[in-house]
Amino acid sequence: MLITLTTDFGHRDPFVGIMKGVIAGINPAAQVIDLTHGIPPQDIMAAALALRHSIKYFPLGTIHVVVVDPGVGGARRPLLIEMAGNYFIGPDNGVLSLALNEGRPEKIIELTNAKYHLKAPAATFHGRDIFAPVAAHLSSGVPPDQFGDSLSSFVKLGIPQVTREQKLLTGEIIYADHYGNLFTNISAHDLRGLSDKEPTITVGSVTLHGLIPSYDSVAVNQVGALINSWGVLEIAVNQGSAAQKCRAKVGDKVTVISVSRSGGGN
Amino acid sequence: MLITLTTDFGHRDPFVGIMKGVIAGINPAAQVIDLTHGIPPQDIMAAALALRHSIKYFPLGTIHVVVVDPGVGGARRPLLIEMAGNYFIGPDNGVLSLALNEGRPEKIIELTNAKYHLKAPAATFHGRDIFAPVAAHLSSGVPPDQFGDSLSSFVKLGIPQVTREQKLLTGEIIYADHYGNLFTNISAHDLRGLSDKEPTITVGSVTLHGLIPSYDSVAVNQVGALINSWGVLEIAVNQGSAAQKCRAKVGDKVTVISVSRSGGGN
Amino acid sequence: MLITLTTDFGHRDPFVGIMKGVIAGINPAAQVIDLTHGIPPQDIMAAALALRHSIKYFPLGTIHVVVVDPGVGGARRPLLIEMAGNYFIGPDNGVLSLALNEGRPEKIIELTNAKYHLKAPAATFHGRDIFAPVAAHLSSGVPPDQFGDSLSSFVKLGIPQVTREQKLLTGEIIYADHYGNLFTNISAHDLRGLSDKEPTITVGSVTLHGLIPSYDSVAVNQVGALINSWGVLEIAVNQGSAAQKCRAKVGDKVTVISVSRSGGGN
Repeated sequence: MLITLTTDFGHRDPFVGIMKGVIAGINPAAQVIDLTHGIPPQDIMAAALALRHSIKYFPLGTIHVVVVDPGVGGARRPLLIEMAGNYFIGPDNGVLSLALNEGRPEKIIELTNAKYHLKAPAATFHGRDIFAPVAAHLSSGVPPDQFGDSLSSFVKLGIPQVTREQKLLTGEIIYADHYGNLFTNISAHDLRGLSDKEPTITVGSVTLHGLIPSYDSVAVNQVGALINSWGVLEIAVNQGSAAQKCRAKVGDKVTVISVSRSGGGN
Repeated sequence: MLITLTTDFGHRDPFVGIMKGVIAGINPAAQVIDLTHGIPPQDIMAAALALRHSIKYFPLGTIHVVVVDPGVGGARRPLLIEMAGNYFIGPDNGVLSLALNEGRPEKIIELTNAKYHLKAPAATFHGRDIFAPVAAHLSSGVPPDQFGDSLSSFVKLGIPQVTREQKLLTGEIIYADHYGNLFTNISAHDLRGLSDKEPTITVGSVTLHGLIPSYDSVAVNQVGALINSWGVLEIAVNQGSAAQKCRAKVGDKVTVISVSRSGGGN
Repeated sequence: MLITLTTDFGHRDPFVGIMKGVIAGINPAAQVIDLTHGIPPQDIMAAALALRHSIKYFPLGTIHVVVVDPGVGGARRPLLIEMAGNYFIGPDNGVLSLALNEGRPEKIIELTNAKYHLKAPAATFHGRDIFAPVAAHLSSGVPPDQFGDSLSSFVKLGIPQVTREQKLLTGEIIYADHYGNLFTNISAHDLRGLSDKEPTITVGSVTLHGLIPSYDSVAVNQVGALINSWGVLEIAVNQGSAAQKCRAKVGDKVTVISVSRSGGGN
């Protein structure tokens, strides 16, 4: 059975390796895939988005463990959620919620049964002491109900909504990747609603006309906008960083105006 | 059989992948777990500490390979150590020693038998040419004695010791993690010896009173001290970096004073 | 069957993990090894060199997937190449070529058969939508010919050539690793042709006399030159960065002069 790990642990410390050791000790047959450990520290939204756009590429029955957990050791609850044949394990701070928000979980379990935790969990590392052993036991066939008590709800994040006023769509940058590509919350579906096939897209002081089919449709170092692998509008620079070139970051506004351009002729 | 890898190779180059290729070529059934490859270049102490605090989370019989090896190709000896059912492979520069220092190795072998090395080892990459193939052959069932001659000792690192003068404990920062959390050499056991339940903890110009139970027991961006997942006193900032906020680094002094605080009343 | 992944995806995003999910969904028995994901963005040469110097350490039959792909979604072709019992999958931009340039491929296939791609491939992520599923199907036993049409050629990179004028070899730095070691295009074989056993090596303002046998043959922080694990001349600093100390980078010239040094005596 497949277990994925998503954390903000970075790559300096042995923390991810330790979680894998715990899993291997409980279920040597478990296969573990790192989704990413490069989530910015404590960035619950980045982790929630990464998970949301990844789960459909994993086989049914995968166990997704997410440890971005600024409240570790405090009052936030540790969760196991089952939905549509997949499993989600992590803190109840919203980090699991964007992967789930188009569905209704079959089970929401608070991980209260210490039998499946390491002894005397530390206040700073529930990834090692609670989430990894629970994932390993679940992958070994322990039924979800064994891990604790049922809950009726869990913390949900909201993705910023796109607003529409006549011919103006207003969204924002919600994710910036390693290359400096800027992912917005404006979907291909939002854009399909526009009559104008070459809408005017604005981010900061940069204005673009229409979408490009691929990064190399503009010259090297030039900015373009396209529909990316998440199915959303992305601002990118061919072989460069849009984050740098547009001086833009997560939270910045992006607008799309769909007026037919003026001028004579056809 | 499980093999872990701990190196200072970083994440830019194919060096770790090459070691895994060598292992897979010798023993396709070996399972390899990365402990970390983010050890700062040549930082033998950081690697030794990472290994020390990780091995108990791996199943018995694990083979731990550590390649932080500034003396590669020179006079330092390549080692295989067996202790308490686990195996440790790496250069004889102390990097394996902190994981072993509470026990007595059953076997200390110098890796002199070239039969189990790649041909014509390069002077710069014994991870590929000696340590990986030895680990793979060991995981395939080759007995430890086959890899070379027995030694009676190996290089040992010392962890800086905590000193105690009446009501004053003096320790130091020995590790800083990805988040900027500062790990000290002062253990929970050292602190349990204090009569004062709210000792005064000082690092640089920062003074703290008592321990907190979890990171979020102080406000966001505030400093606190707690017992962490290694069982030692840690200086941390809730959702921030203690290394930055306290302007502190490995080697800096940390003191704990256990006088009952003055003032009237109970 | 073994699949390796080499990309410039970095470590912040879930992109590598997603590729592994796609592979696991198609062939759960495939074993995936990360060669590296730290190739500098769009650096086709760095990826081509990393692959070139890695493949001989992997077992016969390995499938090497490389995704450094600035032209993704545009006109560049997606390829599968079979050579000498190994397989190479990636964009036709030269990134596969240095691993192949001493041989003659048995098969060069353009990945035109959409049956083995994910549906509706995005313009920005052929690693997920084309290269990963093709690698997984290939590892499951689908014959190479099934993936598309045969081609007669593919894009090839050239490694800068070393020039020789009498007693002067002129090469250049072609790769800088994580430690700041500078790898040149001057091979051990090039140097063996020299009569002088202590040639004068120059990079920028740094001049060295002869080769050292290992990094620690010079004092800490001193520069030396040696034959490294790729079998080429490397400029290195004992426990430091030659890139920093020599202020040198990829593309900078390196010369080797093989005059016997003047002076009296033997």
